[in-house]
Order: sequence, then C-alpha cells, then structure tokens
Amino acid sequence: MKELLTVDEWEAAARDRLTPMAWDYFRSGADSERTLARNREAFARRALWYRVLRDVENRDLSLELLGDKLATPVLVAPTAYHRLAHPDGERATAEGARAAGALYVISTLATISLEEIAPVAGPRWFQLYVHKDRDLTSALIERAERTGCSAIVLTVDAPLLGRRLADERNGFALPAGMTMANLAVSAPASAAGSGLASYFASRHDASLTWRDLEWLRSHTRLPVLVKGLVRGDDARQAVACGVAGVIVSNHGGRQLDGAPASLDALAEVVAAVGGSTLVLMDGGVRSGTDVLMALALGARAVLVGRPVLWGLAVGGAEGVRRVLALLTEELSRAMALAGCARLSDITPDLVR
Amino acid sequence: MKELLTVDEWEAAARDRLTPMAWDYFRSGADSERTLARNREAFARRALWYRVLRDVENRDLSLELLGDKLATPVLVAPTAYHRLAHPDGERATAEGARAAGALYVISTLATISLEEIAPVAGPRWFQLYVHKDRDLTSALIERAERTGCSAIVLTVDAPLLGRRLADERNGFALPAGMTMANLAVSAPASAAGSGLASYFASRHDASLTWRDLEWLRSHTRLPVLVKGLVRGDDARQAVACGVAGVIVSNHGGRQLDGAPASLDALAEVVAAVGGSTLVLMDGGVRSGTDVLMALALGARAVLVGRPVLWGLAVGGAEGVRRVLALLTEELSRAMALAGCARLSDITPDLVR
Amino acid sequence: MKELLTVDEWEAAARDRLTPMAWDYFRSGADSERTLARNREAFARRALWYRVLRDVENRDLSLELLGDKLATPVLVAPTAYHRLAHPDGERATAEGARAAGALYVISTLATISLEEIAPVAGPRWFQLYVHKDRDLTSALIERAERTGCSAIVLTVDAPLLGRRLADERNGFALPAGMTMANLAVSAPASAAGSGLASYFASRHDASLTWRDLEWLRSHTRLPVLVKGLVRGDDARQAVACGVAGVIVSNHGGRQLDGAPASLDALAEVVAAVGGSTLVLMDGGVRSGTDVLMALALGARAVLVGRPVLWGLAVGGAEGVRRVLALLTEELSRAMALAGCARLSDITPDLVR
Amino acid sequence: MKELLTVDEWEAAARDRLTPMAWDYFRSGADSERTLARNREAFARRALWYRVLRDVENRDLSLELLGDKLATPVLVAPTAYHRLAHPDGERATAEGARAAGALYVISTLATISLEEIAPVAGPRWFQLYVHKDRDLTSALIERAERTGCSAIVLTVDAPLLGRRLADERNGFALPAGMTMANLAVSAPASAAGSGLASYFASRHDASLTWRDLEWLRSHTRLPVLVKGLVRGDDARQAVACGVAGVIVSNHGGRQLDGAPASLDALAEVVAAVGGSTLVLMDGGVRSGTDVLMALALGARAVLVGRPVLWGLAVGGAEGVRRVLALLTEELSRAMALAGCARLSDITPDLVR
Repeated sequence: MKELLTVDEWEAAARDRLTPMAWDYFRSGADSERTLARNREAFARRALWYRVLRDVENRDLSLELLGDKLATPVLVAPTAYHRLAHPDGERATAEGARAAGALYVISTLATISLEEIAPVAGPRWFQLYVHKDRDLTSALIERAERTGCSAIVLTVDAPLLGRRLADERNGFALPAGMTMANLAVSAPASAAGSGLASYFASRHDASLTWRDLEWLRSHTRLPVLVKGLVRGDDARQAVACGVAGVIVSNHGGRQLDGAPASLDALAEVVAAVGGSTLVLMDGGVRSGTDVLMALALGARAVLVGRPVLWGLAVGGAEGVRRVLALLTEELSRAMALAGCARLSDITPDLVR
Repeated sequence: MKELLTVDEWEAAARDRLTPMAWDYFRSGADSERTLARNREAFARRALWYRVLRDVENRDLSLELLGDKLATPVLVAPTAYHRLAHPDGERATAEGARAAGALYVISTLATISLEEIAPVAGPRWFQLYVHKDRDLTSALIERAERTGCSAIVLTVDAPLLGRRLADERNGFALPAGMTMANLAVSAPASAAGSGLASYFASRHDASLTWRDLEWLRSHTRLPVLVKGLVRGDDARQAVACGVAGVIVSNHGGRQLDGAPASLDALAEVVAAVGGSTLVLMDGGVRSGTDVLMALALGARAVLVGRPVLWGLAVGGAEGVRRVLALLTEELSRAMALAGCARLSDITPDLVR
Repeated sequence: MKELLTVDEWEAAARDRLTPMAWDYFRSGADSERTLARNREAFARRALWYRVLRDVENRDLSLELLGDKLATPVLVAPTAYHRLAHPDGERATAEGARAAGALYVISTLATISLEEIAPVAGPRWFQLYVHKDRDLTSALIERAERTGCSAIVLTVDAPLLGRRLADERNGFALPAGMTMANLAVSAPASAAGSGLASYFASRHDASLTWRDLEWLRSHTRLPVLVKGLVRGDDARQAVACGVAGVIVSNHGGRQLDGAPASLDALAEVVAAVGGSTLVLMDGGVRSGTDVLMALALGARAVLVGRPVLWGLAVGGAEGVRRVLALLTEELSRAMALAGCARLSDITPDLVR
Repeated sequence: MKELLTVDEWEAAARDRLTPMAWDYFRSGADSERTLARNREAFARRALWYRVLRDVENRDLSLELLGDKLATPVLVAPTAYHRLAHPDGERATAEGARAAGALYVISTLATISLEEIAPVAGPRWFQLYVHKDRDLTSALIERAERTGCSAIVLTVDAPLLGRRLADERNGFALPAGMTMANLAVSAPASAAGSGLASYFASRHDASLTWRDLEWLRSHTRLPVLVKGLVRGDDARQAVACGVAGVIVSNHGGRQLDGAPASLDALAEVVAAVGGSTLVLMDGGVRSGTDVLMALALGARAVLVGRPVLWGLAVGGAEGVRRVLALLTEELSRAMALAGCARLSDITPDLVR
C-alpha cells in the first residue's frame, strides 16, 4: 500500500477500488446531501484556540468507555455491508479496529455474523435496528450478549430509510452470495429503486417509541446507548429512560436531509445532558483536528464510518488499522499543538 | 415516462420539452433574479432539528382548508398559460391535482376557461387580477362562483408586471390560437419587449388599495385570501379587512427583485397574524423537506408553481399528479424522519 | 443603438467600444478591488420588504435639491475624462443629463471646460479638487459660479490618488490632444506608472483639513457639499462646518481599498446627521432597486458614475440620457412594486 | 527586475524561480490549510472606516521597538532556510531589511550563521527554538547576544512540527551543502516523509512550559518576547512571566490547522494585555491596508514572512528591500487615505 497521508487520500484510493454501486452506497447522503455537506462544514467553520507552553511531550489518548479500555477515542461507527468494500468484510474491520485499540460498533446489517466476528475482535458494541418481529430482535440482542458485545446501540434516526438518489438509480442490492449475515437474508433487488429501502420498510419498525427503549433495557443486561438524536430534549428523555449514553448523529447525512450538522447538535446535547451521561458523536470527522474539536465541544469520543470503509476497501484489516492509526496520530499531534497532554485537557474553551 | 426522482429532475426533463420562449417565461424571475435565488437559499440555510422515537408508522397528511378536504398540504399555485406547457393546459392541471388530492388555484390568466376546467376539477380556488374594468372583474368573480371555486385569491404584489429580461428579449407573446380564455383575449405581441407586460399595464389596475379589498369582499359570497404580501403590518391590515387567509409570496421572484425570500417573510407574517388567520406560502418549495420547513414555520399549507408546470410539460395530467405525489411522498418521509405522524405534529421548534 | 436592458448590458457594450486603457481606467478600483466588489454586494445582501395595496398608478419621482428641480433622484456623479469615452465628452454628458432631467456634477478633471459645457447643460454642480495653488482653486470656484453651477462638491477622500493597478501597468495618460480643460493641462505620461497619479501627487493638496472647508465656504456664495466620507463623526463635523450636504461615497472603490461599502456607510451617516443635512450617496448603484434601497436607507438621491460613462461610450448624449432613463424607469417600477407613489413614501422600514 | 506591483505579483515571480520543493516548503500551511486561508480572509472580511480632512501631507511611519529605531512598522518575521530561496541566504535578507529600515528577526534555523549575518545587518532579534540540549540552547542565546541581537523571540507554538503535506510527499530535506548554520547540522533526508519534521521531533523540546520561560529570562540580559500565542489568557500569563512583548501568530498557518486567524486572535490578545506589553502580530499580511488594519486593532508592528522570501527569491537583498519598501509605501498611502499622518493616529475605531 502506498503511503496515504490524509483520510481524503484514503477516500480517493478507495473510490478506485470499489464498484460504482458500492461507492455510491457508501458515499451518498440523503436527497440533496445538504446535511452530508453540513457535517464537514461545521468543523471548517470553527476555530481551535490552542494553548501554549504546556508540557506535551508525552500524550495519553487512552480512555475507558463503559468498562472497555481503549487506546484511542476514535471509534468505528456502525456501517452496513462491509463485504461490499472487501471480501473479508466485518472480520477485517474487527481485526483492524482491535489492532488500533479502537472500539468497533458492529452493525445489525453486517455481512459477517456476530459469531464469526467474535474470535478476531477487540472491544465491541452492537448496533441494533428493532424489527417488527420482536423475537428476531430479542434473538439479535441475545447473540450480541453471547458473542461478547459490551453494549447495545439503538439507532433511533431511521424509522424508515432516507432516500439516497444514487441507490435508487442503481437499484441498489447486495450482490449474489452476500447476505445480511445476522439476519440470514439478502437485500433483494426490487423491481425498481433501492432494494435496501424496500427491505427496510417491510421489516423495520417505524412505530418505535420511548416505551420501546424501556422494553429494550429490560431485555438486556448490557448498557444501552441511543444513536441518532440531535436535540437536547430528546437527549434528556433518553437519560430519563436510563440509557448509558447518547450518540449525537444524523446517520452521516443519510436520513433526514436538512438535519443539522452533528457538531452543531453536539453543543446542544452536551448543554442538555453533558454532565449526566456519556455523550459521543459521529458525522463529518475526517481529521485529528476534527476529533479534537468534537472532544472540546463535549464528546467523550467520536465515531468514524466512511473513513473506516475507505481503509477497508484499500487494505482490508491493515487498511482499517492504518486509517484509525492515522486519525489517532493526527489527534495526538493536534493535542500537542493545542497544549493538551491528556484527553481531559481538551476543554470547551479551545473551540469558538 | 422515465422515473424522475426529484423536482429538479422534472425541471430538467421539462426544459427539454418546452419551447425556449415558454421555458424562459416559466423559469425566469425579475431583473437580476436575486429573489428567485433567495427563495431557495432560505430553505438551504435552515436546519431541521428532528425528533426521534415517535410512532410514525402511519402518517396522516390530510387537512381541511376553508371547507375543502385535501389529501396533501401541497397545493397548486396559480400560474398563467398552461397551454404553453401542454396542449391540454389547465384541464390537465386540474385533473392531475384532483388525482393527487391537491387543491388547485386557477389563474385569471388561464388558457382554458373556468367553465371548461370545472368538469374535471377537484377542490379549487380562483386567483383574481383586478382589472380597471370593474364589470369585467365582477364577471370573473361571478363565473368563479358559478363554476365551483371555493375561494377567491386576490393577487396584491402585481400593480404592474415585474420585468423578466428573457421575456423582453423574446418579445414574449402567446402563440397564435392561444388565448387568455377567461378574458377572451390573447397577449398580443408588442412592437418591442414583452407582450404580457404591455397587456398588463393597459388593463390591470395599479391603483388598487385596501379599500378595493373591501369592495371585493362585498361582491362575493366566497372567502377571500390575499396573495403576495411579505410584511407583518400588511398581513394585519388584511386580517382587519376580513380576509379568510393570507398567502405569503413574492410571486416566485417574478415581481420586485430584491424582495425577501418567502420563507423569511413567512416567519414575520406568522408572528403578526399566525393565530388569527390562515397563513399559506409559496416560493422556492422544491422538496418534501422544504414543505416540512414551511409548515414548521407556521404555514398551514404550501403552494408550488413551477414544479407543477414541469410535471405538466413532461406528462400532462399524469405528470402533474406525479409531481404532486412526489412532493407528498417526500413530505411523508420527512415527517417520519422528523418524528411527526400528523401535520399538527409539525411545530416551530423543528426549525432553526 | 440596440436595446440594452440593464446597466450591466450597457457596460458590456461600452467595453466593446472603449480602448483597453480607457476601459481599465473607468472600470478599475484600487488595489485588490475589495471595496469595488463590496459596493455592489451591499445591495445584494439586503432585502426590500415591499408594501402592497397602495395606489401606485401615478408615480412622482421629482424632487428639489438645493433649489434645483429635478425629474429624477438619479444624479450624475463626477467622473474624469469623458472624452476618453466619447469625442463629445462632458458636453454630451451634460446634454444627456439635461434630457433625462438629472442633475450633473461636473468633475474638476473634465476634458471640456465649464464654459463649453454651460450652454447645453441643465442643473449642475461643480466637483472641486483643492489644489496646492489656492489661486487656481479660487479661479475654479469663480468659474463654476459664473457658468451656472448651483453648488460646490468638495471631494474629501483623495488627499492622494488611490492606486489602480491596471493604470499603473498601462502607464495611464491622456491621449495627445486631450486635456484637463478646466486646468489647461494634460495628464502627462510619466516615466513609469500612472501619469494621473503623478499629476495628482504634484498638484493636489494632501494637507487639506476641516479648516480649509471653512476657507472654501468663505470663498463662494454657493452651497458646499462634501463628498467621500463614510463615518458618522466626520459627517457631524461637516455639518458643524456648515455644509449644505454630505455625499457618502468611497470614490467608487478607487481610493482606500478596504473601505466599507457606501450603502453600509450610508446607514451610519444617516443615523448621525440624517435629520440635519442633505445626505446623498454613490457607489455600486446599478439598478432601480438599488436606488430604492439607498433612498429607503436615508439618501435623498443617489449618484451614478460608471453607468453614465457606459451610456456615453455607447451612445454619446443619447446614451447618457437612456441610461439615466433606464435607471429612472427601473426605480419607478420598483417603487410601484414596493407600494410607493412618491419619493417620500420610501421609508426605512422597506429595507432590512 | 521587472516592476512588481503587489506582494501577490512578487509571489508569482518567486514561484517561477524556486525549486518545487522549496516553493512547497515556503508556501504550505499545515494539513488542509484552513488556517493558512483564514489568515488572509480575516483581513478581507473587515472594513476600514477611514477619516477625512486630516492633514496627511507628511506621514511619519517611524517607530522605536525595545530601543531600536525603525523606519517602518513592517518587520521581517523569522523563517527558516533562506538559502533555499537565494544563494546569499540570510545575509541578503539582513542587507535588504537594513536598507528598508526594517527590523529582522533571525531564525534559529537560518542557513547562514549569526556571526556571518552580523556585519551586514541592521536592528535584529533572534528567534529561539529551545532544544532538549539546554547547553546548546544557552550557547545560541549567548551568540545572539554577542552578535548584536537586541531581543530573544521564543517560539511557543511548535512543541512539535505541524504536518505540511507537500513536505511529506517531497521528503523535504536541505540540499547537500546547505546546513542549519547556527546548529551546524543539516536537515537530513529521512527514510520517508519530511526530514525537517523528524529532526524537529528528535531535538526540540516538547516539554517546554511557562517555567522554562523563566529559565530563559534568567539566562539572557536581552528582552524576551514570546511568539505564537493566540489566547488572551496565555498572553496574560506571558506578561506575568515578565516578557517584553507578545507576537500573536499561528506560525503562518503551518502548525495547528484550525487555529484562528492571527487578526482575529489579535483583538483578543490586545483586549487582554494591550495596555501592559508590546503586542505584535504576523499572519496573512500582504498589503499596506492589511498592515493598517492590524495596527488599528492594536498591534504596534507586524511581521511578514513569506513576502520577504518572495523578494529574496526574486532579487536577493534588493528584492527583500523592495518588498519591504512596497509594503511600507502601501501603508503610507493607506494611512493618508485613512486620515492618519503618524502611527499613533491609527486607532481602533478605523476597523469594524
């Protein structure tokens, strides 16, 4: 593998390797992609008011999240269908994340089963879509527990699937031989439009409410996080429901087009519940200075989705490790230049 | 008809079918088209702070406006000269709107008469230009009443016609055989410049005042709305004059260049009269998230003009129906993703 | 002459007719042309919150300025070297302005003498550069008085000449046979760079202060205006010195690059002295809606410089008349669409 | 040398003369170059609210800084490796600065030794990187004192080197025969990536704190300034440590990408310590109006880095002199146009 210096270079290299359908699927946002663009613009708009003359010779980027010890606050966001990016699929992702000391959030829509991922994986959580079929849902939770996931991440921004135009045009579907391994189904090509969207509409539960969050909590011994909210009042409600944490996210700009940038939402959510629960975020993180900014605004850690897919597409497990290492090194350098030796030195006054 | 995924794709397809003169006429805004651009930019600038974990499995987009039951809050804005877009003209528009369950506001400048539209039309209002000849004006009102229109929409932003440069260059006029059927006149080609502008100046009443609004109210048993205002004080005056509603609009950016975006004006008008009268808006609505945003800012419904013309140009009545259905489906999806099952769930806190 | 629909079209047509050196001279702003761009951007950024249902059938755009009755609030700004644009030079400008009912502010740097302009001119003021040679300055004032100018406009933003890069590169100088007719000198080509800049530095008085304004007032029976200020405190000082009016201007972006847009400065100056003296403005006015905006922000009238030169270059006196008529018609239309029948109807609430 | 009218023209001419590796090294900012762009944008965003009718015939741009009498408030910022720009290297820079009456801040990373620069130099300060080897550091300080530097400038924004992508790609290293003459080492080509970055990491002290500033003050009789801070609280701490001045800087956008524009930081620092210590700034200054803006916001003087390198590359000592003279003439003109005859006339109200 050629030396790739930035996540954007990894993206360009990945584009060369992916099929057009897979590239479109991973890259796209919903509709006019306003939110997709906004996620990155929110970082570009802010400034890092760094401190000087602090001893930053040795930086410590380690942290503990819900009992897992991690080498980096850069986590792997849940994304679907990793075998579209690389034959080794989610196994490679898990290996790469473990090698980087990063936590991996496995998607319900993985193309490798939880059981097959487990042997090679480090710390990991399970991202859950609640299905209309609650027995199926319960079985998924139980398998996550049994295979060693240490938390459940309930996605709450997808009562139905956002419309990604390229997928509609491509009639997006999983290739023959590739399945949603945890569900033992493929995303069948539909007569017209995105097969995933059709599948989603038929199986996922759009009637999910806060009450179901309570059902979920009572059906698992694992801590539960909710992922995909942007509002302070929703975050407060989640805390009232006993979640272990919230992940501020707009699903990478793939659900409601027009949603606020994750980074803008982060500030609101932290103001609402920052003291009382774990707050994470994803959306638009592409560099170490982005990570630093999100942490300064109150996130304990960030998740990256597409960057991991670019690493996976280019170099399998080693590509995943290298992308995560790149972001971690960039964060370490940015911390040094901002006068921060430990994650706890990253305080809100650094960002305006 | 090929599957067209967005209103912008309908626009591109329409452009291929329209004569350059018709395309210019429908597309253009006044002068430097600042307001035309601003109408859309006002949507792009705002964010939708969606809610999560609400039961949105079944959405209800129906509403009642001044006694008419409608399937969608997306209405057909009054626009002129539909036979320029399709041989079936306003009859096709009426059919398409009815099929979509949408209310249709027929223009004074229709190329099919009110009487010919009536048999195929669903709920409809009549848009009125007050002519210097008040007998002609009274006759129009009476015909609107007789043919089944359920409200009169008085356009108040056009004491004279805004200058659309392309129309001036094209010497815009109706083709031979096409007439303003309600007026039994054509827009004659003028020696130079836009024939419509000349016609307008000669026949329309630029001396119209609030007093004439009272005259209008006393000459019809139908509810009267005023369309084309942007200011809170004007809206209050309209309410004082007993209107049934106001339509915030800048005439699609075709009258005063430099006018505020409709969406920006909506907030001001709602603040002034939102509790006391029906407030609608048009201008720049091109997607379901746009509709959601306008409703959140206080509009009970929105009107779309150019999108309907693109549907009409591409596919006649069926094209109109499909464009309206597209916007309605997009709204339904956006509501689900924003946590809204009913129109009444769309509250101001969703937009910032 | 082909029909030209906008000032921008007049500009394009003028460019085709002017020598590159003349085009550069007229078009350029100082240095990086930030202020030149800003002058226009300030109009584009604001919105016109128009009123409806006012009787605007008959509009009256006439006004009286310091005793002169004018048909339009669009005045001709002082600009130099009109013979570079058209052989008839300032005589043609004067004729065109008179035909349009517009006041003409003659430049010290005219290429036709005050005495030759007088026979064909309507209402006019004289723009004065104070020279180190006060006898020369006094003689200019006396000639302005004698030839019928009704006010003196003292330019205060040019203690030395702003640097226009194109002029430097072109070694800008007046062609053989063309002189500054009021001064009986040419702008000699300099060894390097702009001849005008060299001339300016050698003859104009960079030591001018408020005290010299008093000297000026005592040396003329005519009212004196100062042109080229942007600050409220400077405007107050001018009023304290007994001026008849102030012209908010940054010299068309040709002096201090980085100066605020004239329209932004107008608001500040009006707030400081709006009630106590006549306030005019120039800078970036290219359309009737621009004029409306400036009047709403408190200017009694506006001056246009480059647009008049484009008219002059394309069509001599008739070109000047037509450009002024175009702007006046555009203003009339914009007033109608904004609910204003008289200039006094143009109130600050129209602009935000 | 052809007449070059602006610093941007000097830059273009320099690009033609430099090796690609040298051009990249001098031009680049860190990472995505947000801060590099922001430094200039901060000037473009502000306006100069100039004053009129002040006597500006004779301008005095001289000043005294820590005892040195200077002809201009435009100083030469410390930059590394001048022999990459011109064979005469820092000797030429020193000569050019002296000829322009400008203070020169010599870099630790000069390619000509302090002893060789001394004979041709005017007023100068020494920029210090503190090395892990404190004896080496002490020796540098002593040599700076002995060779006539009148202050020590401690760089505080570089505990490690920012990542400049082009240097990584180029494997940036000093050519054979070129050394860091004050350190008697070359920047050796590294196996991969920027040799400078590797050198920096191995030798420079990333554990530097405020306490080391006190060590430095006790090891020199010269006044000490700190360079590279952006925060008011850091500036206050520097003052508490007894510095003679602070230089607001983000290292020309070459260290922490995302750092605020220097001009934005200047306002904060001046508000914090403006009355109690000398405040200078660098970053993005490319014209006389930029200098005027920075002085108005509270800088006593500004430093320019890249512009001096462009002058050096194009014309050696004479190029350096001319670039500094250009900026000084531009400042003089801008002062005249803003109503300022002396540096003390440049007050905060000029900028908004």
